[in-house]
Amino acid sequence: MKNLLCLTRREIETFLPDGRLEEARSLLEPVRCVDPLSLESEEAWFGLLSECNPEILVAAWKTPQLPEDLPAVASDLKYVCYLPGSVRHFLPRSALENGLLVTNWSSSVSRTVSECALLMALACMRRVRYWTEEMHSNGGWKNDNTETLSLIGRRVGLHGLGLIAQQLVELLKPFTRNISAFSPSVPDSIFEDLGVRRSASLEDLFSQNDVIVELAALTDKTRGMVTEDLLGSIPVNGAFVNVGRGAVVDEAALARVASERSDLQIALDVYSIEPLPKDSPLRGMKNVLLLPHLGGPTTDRRRDAGDHGLKNIRRYLRGEDPIDPLDLSMYDRAS
Amino acid sequence: MKNLLCLTRREIETFLPDGRLEEARSLLEPVRCVDPLSLESEEAWFGLLSECNPEILVAAWKTPQLPEDLPAVASDLKYVCYLPGSVRHFLPRSALENGLLVTNWSSSVSRTVSECALLMALACMRRVRYWTEEMHSNGGWKNDNTETLSLIGRRVGLHGLGLIAQQLVELLKPFTRNISAFSPSVPDSIFEDLGVRRSASLEDLFSQNDVIVELAALTDKTRGMVTEDLLGSIPVNGAFVNVGRGAVVDEAALARVASERSDLQIALDVYSIEPLPKDSPLRGMKNVLLLPHLGGPTTDRRRDAGDHGLKNIRRYLRGEDPIDPLDLSMYDRAS
Repeated sequence: MKNLLCLTRREIETFLPDGRLEEARSLLEPVRCVDPLSLESEEAWFGLLSECNPEILVAAWKTPQLPEDLPAVASDLKYVCYLPGSVRHFLPRSALENGLLVTNWSSSVSRTVSECALLMALACMRRVRYWTEEMHSNGGWKNDNTETLSLIGRRVGLHGLGLIAQQLVELLKPFTRNISAFSPSVPDSIFEDLGVRRSASLEDLFSQNDVIVELAALTDKTRGMVTEDLLGSIPVNGAFVNVGRGAVVDEAALARVASERSDLQIALDVYSIEPLPKDSPLRGMKNVLLLPHLGGPTTDRRRDAGDHGLKNIRRYLRGEDPIDPLDLSMYDRAS
Repeated sequence: MKNLLCLTRREIETFLPDGRLEEARSLLEPVRCVDPLSLESEEAWFGLLSECNPEILVAAWKTPQLPEDLPAVASDLKYVCYLPGSVRHFLPRSALENGLLVTNWSSSVSRTVSECALLMALACMRRVRYWTEEMHSNGGWKNDNTETLSLIGRRVGLHGLGLIAQQLVELLKPFTRNISAFSPSVPDSIFEDLGVRRSASLEDLFSQNDVIVELAALTDKTRGMVTEDLLGSIPVNGAFVNVGRGAVVDEAALARVASERSDLQIALDVYSIEPLPKDSPLRGMKNVLLLPHLGGPTTDRRRDAGDHGLKNIRRYLRGEDPIDPLDLSMYDRAS
């Protein structure tokens, strides 16, 4: 029985630096290590899979796609340890239906996303987007009427209270304890442990908080759930931050509200369509901070995803359940 | 004996909202309240001072300047409660020399400055300055080579360990415990209580930390102390943040280092000359985030300065020492 590690040099440097590759090799022994850039065709890849017939496959962005009829090519494959996030373009849904065990970076990257959310909330308060253009292109400076806000003591509303939101709560606490969340599926005990108030509705969340952070998972139910009315109800001088999923928001409505309300500060890392189209009305708006979906993980913290993968390989080899194996609903809602 | 409160409506709204004006009035009774915008000339102001001859004067930005020969005009004046920061343009040095008691917003605004420092450090890590221009003006998006960094686990070096730096340490702790400071005048006990390592020299601080935050007070000794060599020694992909005093840094050298090292991310809220000259080479640089000296306090937290003033008035009236009365060295180094 052999295992297969199919990563580029760059992926190894970013996910498995500082001895992690050696640890992976020793855990997976006997293991074949292949640089996907050396594979010249799909046939070569399928040939490798078939010849090696691994039990465990360690993969990342550059690993070629797995075949639709996976059992015919790699009959012994039991576990795919995918180091990045979405496997949507890497493996067929049928593989999960047939019981293949798959893990990804899962919650190991949530710290960097919550860090990005805090950055964006702080940047909205100081209007960093506006000042960047004023200072660099317009020779600007403040005047007597310049308004700036602090996050200190502000009401923060979280749409969603998953792991990223929970870690964000800890980052927010030095600034404010006035935190609410709307997340019907999360039990009261988690709200209580975090010291977060439960909002009765999304309407309450948006209209009764100064800073809204969008963190809801994308499902059929949440798609387009953040409407023009909700966005328009955010209090004066409020902020809307999205580090979750772009399609949870009606993006055309968001652009309209942004153009109508210069008091509202918006910061986005995610979009309905990515890359964000070059002609998106969001580009150019002075009250909208834009980042190109780099919430998490940052390149320097991809090693956390590597550590998470190593932990899951150890668990698998000991016959224990890996952390957060992918199920079909996670597969379907991945971006 | 009368007291005098000389603030505009706007200053009252910003410093003394939500019942604070009423509290000030009742503490200062009998008190005369005058809007400085109603004073038509310097003579009118001096006439008012002379007629009222207050013991306590509450003042802010729009209060007209006090006369050079203050005792001749307001012989009973004992205490000036100046609600904002620098009194340099408001009262003559001789007033302090003659024993006038003066307080300003002092440390009550340091929380918002430390908040701004954290924002700027996080913004450097994600290259917000760069991405703002790329996303808005150049239709940009990330690619395979996009590098982003997190503050998590990074080495942070603080130049100065006064109150703002101490509060910043608390804001940094959720991200990193790897914090050093260079501040010869601060005793070991404060370093120990904060869990901050003492850097042996400014050279060590700059060359052995990833993120440098400039917070040293401006004195004859610190003026221009941050040289080209120091700035150039910051490690690859490092960051330099200044929320302290612009003139501590050799600004021409900073601009040179910024143009030579695109890996170095810089974020500035303060400058050698303010407003920052329109032709400053810093304007336009893609690795330099610029804000127009709005670190602190934000307009919404000026009420903290109002509370601080009220506390000092109560202390004065009880015959206690106010907090942080200005001395001549503070007067001389104010901006």
